[in-house]
Amino acid sequence: MGRLNINNINPHVRAAEYAVRGELAVKSEELRAQLNKGNTSLPFDQVISANIGNPQQLDQKPITFFRQVLSLLENPQLLEKEDVLVNGLGYKTDVIERAKWLLKHCGSVGAYSASSGVSAIKESIAKFLERRDGFSANPANIYLSAGASSGVNTLLHILSESNKSGVLVPIPQYPLYTATLSVLDATCVPYYLDESKAWGTDLEAIRASYEKAKSEGVDVRCIVIINPGNPTGASLSEADVRAVIDFASKEKLVIMADEVYQTNVFIGQFHSFKGVLRKLQQENPGKYDDVELASLHSVSKGMVGECGHRGGYFELVGFDPEVEATIYKFVSIMLCAPVIGQCLVELMVNPPQPGEPSFELYDKEYNAIANGLRERANALHKAFEQMEGVECGEPQGAMYLFPTITLPQKAIEAASAEGRKADEFYCMRLLEATGVCVVPGSGFGQREGTLHFRTTFLAPGTEWVSRITKFHQEFMDKYR
Amino acid sequence: MGRLNINNINPHVRAAEYAVRGELAVKSEELRAQLNKGNTSLPFDQVISANIGNPQQLDQKPITFFRQVLSLLENPQLLEKEDVLVNGLGYKTDVIERAKWLLKHCGSVGAYSASSGVSAIKESIAKFLERRDGFSANPANIYLSAGASSGVNTLLHILSESNKSGVLVPIPQYPLYTATLSVLDATCVPYYLDESKAWGTDLEAIRASYEKAKSEGVDVRCIVIINPGNPTGASLSEADVRAVIDFASKEKLVIMADEVYQTNVFIGQFHSFKGVLRKLQQENPGKYDDVELASLHSVSKGMVGECGHRGGYFELVGFDPEVEATIYKFVSIMLCAPVIGQCLVELMVNPPQPGEPSFELYDKEYNAIANGLRERANALHKAFEQMEGVECGEPQGAMYLFPTITLPQKAIEAASAEGRKADEFYCMRLLEATGVCVVPGSGFGQREGTLHFRTTFLAPGTEWVSRITKFHQEFMDKYR
Repeated sequence: MGRLNINNINPHVRAAEYAVRGELAVKSEELRAQLNKGNTSLPFDQVISANIGNPQQLDQKPITFFRQVLSLLENPQLLEKEDVLVNGLGYKTDVIERAKWLLKHCGSVGAYSASSGVSAIKESIAKFLERRDGFSANPANIYLSAGASSGVNTLLHILSESNKSGVLVPIPQYPLYTATLSVLDATCVPYYLDESKAWGTDLEAIRASYEKAKSEGVDVRCIVIINPGNPTGASLSEADVRAVIDFASKEKLVIMADEVYQTNVFIGQFHSFKGVLRKLQQENPGKYDDVELASLHSVSKGMVGECGHRGGYFELVGFDPEVEATIYKFVSIMLCAPVIGQCLVELMVNPPQPGEPSFELYDKEYNAIANGLRERANALHKAFEQMEGVECGEPQGAMYLFPTITLPQKAIEAASAEGRKADEFYCMRLLEATGVCVVPGSGFGQREGTLHFRTTFLAPGTEWVSRITKFHQEFMDKYR
Repeated sequence: MGRLNINNINPHVRAAEYAVRGELAVKSEELRAQLNKGNTSLPFDQVISANIGNPQQLDQKPITFFRQVLSLLENPQLLEKEDVLVNGLGYKTDVIERAKWLLKHCGSVGAYSASSGVSAIKESIAKFLERRDGFSANPANIYLSAGASSGVNTLLHILSESNKSGVLVPIPQYPLYTATLSVLDATCVPYYLDESKAWGTDLEAIRASYEKAKSEGVDVRCIVIINPGNPTGASLSEADVRAVIDFASKEKLVIMADEVYQTNVFIGQFHSFKGVLRKLQQENPGKYDDVELASLHSVSKGMVGECGHRGGYFELVGFDPEVEATIYKFVSIMLCAPVIGQCLVELMVNPPQPGEPSFELYDKEYNAIANGLRERANALHKAFEQMEGVECGEPQGAMYLFPTITLPQKAIEAASAEGRKADEFYCMRLLEATGVCVVPGSGFGQREGTLHFRTTFLAPGTEWVSRITKFHQEFMDKYR
């Protein structure tokens, strides 16, 4: 017997749960491996990973402009052969110029950057935020990160003073939040989103959770908002955003706005917390000056879909300079975010503009991805509408649908006999029968007595959707 | 006043120290910015960042084979124009084949990989370890990470059960270890390296630290070894490695072997902990079967020097399967290491072989970097030998020299009057006078009453070395 075993390692790591890559995901990889080895005894010939927002694993092609620039950053020797690039490979002049500009500012993508990121890239992000929100942004308050996940990890580390430090987290939520709070031994204060109102924020629910936690001695210091929502896809109205800021201001809560799906919006439009906060400050001089906001974005989602590159950033507003200095020190320990990922952030926030050589293709590719996502979301939604015991709101945003399922009592009993939650049981049977991997609602949290699953709508075609419908009918018939 | 201030954030993050990017580094960036803005009033015209092992920020050029492959991974459309690649751009066929192979196995570098890394890359690493050590390696026990730093972070997270959990850390050490243990609120148990024996491990010193900590109620569970050493450059003998393994085995300590400088060895040869452990196991059947070893490597150092890509891995030996499953879950929360960095790990462990088209250039570039490092280390060492009050052993490995400095009493008093440690004072004056940024020994830990600084030998030329010698003479004259 060696030193470490499951009972003497870090109990907070042991307790953390992360369902997106849990048992079902592991099982789906086993099934994929069996198929690759030529196993023909399975009832499907392809595994569909609808459990994870991983666009380029499925249908989504990278955007040509981005990848052309990155190829030059990786091999700057190519810049010595501009004629071959232009005439032989069809690289446009703006691709070459952008690569030269990025190389000038980061030196080599193989060198560490400053801990908070390449300065020129932070300036590009600030300009993007100014264009997006109509309010100024300061590059000094922007931190590049390895995807938004790493930014969330940093911010939750800083916030957590003790195990009494509490963070309001929406339920259902992306489990990064609960898992990280568990590792930090801080307190997750769940608040329920309102399924009856398209999974919007419900201020009464937030207030009730906050008051209850406070009465139990929790030092609630932050509220997390995921907008557009994961797993719900919900896109918040400006009124909802205003209400949250107002509440956070009154109760002195840091707002952590996870806005990685900001370009994946089908209904209405995206309202950034930063933009709405600045409006509130303008309308009510002095009143909202103390609000502390951290907003996060990444290259992983949207039409960019470059999650393997681990690029992202967060912007801080209203943070104490000594706290920012501590954040800087903390990110320094890991040296810097991947530099090629930082460059991709720059390309995302500063894409080709009308009239520039690469614009036409960029625009075409971008719109094709956006339209494809919308079409597939609608097709999936339509299928869900026709399934017995399944209810699902209209697709609003992000990359997910999160239907409610009502299962027969016999199915619930069969799950229980297997020691599983009913939604886990359903999802496991779905995977085994169809090769489609989704995540049970219990992995994100859901109201007691309700059952859901989350599926991405990234996989191409509709054949896999009909596999789900067929399975569902058989499942219902079996346990009715 | 908002919510967060320096007194109510995470006290363990607040307490962490990370000198490599501390006050001196910040000051050096300010000076660099002043020079870039045309300030001509400074006594130097260039800032030399000798504080950080960042090869490509200084002289080191990336290896062509690596970057050609990466350019194809970033833009796979180039593979449709093989004739242009070969005839127009001079890409060899093995570059193209490797890119195709990697793309086949990771799909797109923009997609998340499995949490522990791309399977085929883990298999390549295992084969490399088998060639290096002469003993088999299991891909299932290999985890890709965002540089070795992220691997260290993962392992220390898992190890730390409570604030009584102790980790033996060499002094001087790379401050990642103390900083991470501070953040985790675990106990750092320092043991001194033996400067009189070229900074080797001193088993008596290790044992004494271990016994003292144990007697104070610390649950010592791990020993960290950095070999070759950072900041010392020391390269351990096989006997030293054997002695550490034997001690760890007796006391049931997990061994964490930070071997990121394994190819930067000037004297003798590198002895991997894995290889020596397997030999010990072979020689003493049954005796060392329980030893738990985690060994780490990265693309950041050596002749690769691609730290901006944040690629690395660790291999586990003898870990309990449930503990490994918890490690897998923990790394899943951050999804995966940067995929392009994973591909670079594959290229590092599986470079062109004699007879292959890219071998000649690869070999030439690799050797030129190795020779350049050795030459500059020797030049710097020679300069140190001639400086009054400076003692420095022969360069052995890594990218650093770590000389002892003996400063006049008046200098120590002047430092104290400024509220600084004497080595910090010296390094700050050096930076202001010469633009050369080094790290004071206190940033790594040193025996009470001794003073050191760490400098990389990465910067090109020798002019900057003479700046140091001149400054040193003037400093000594001033405070004599």
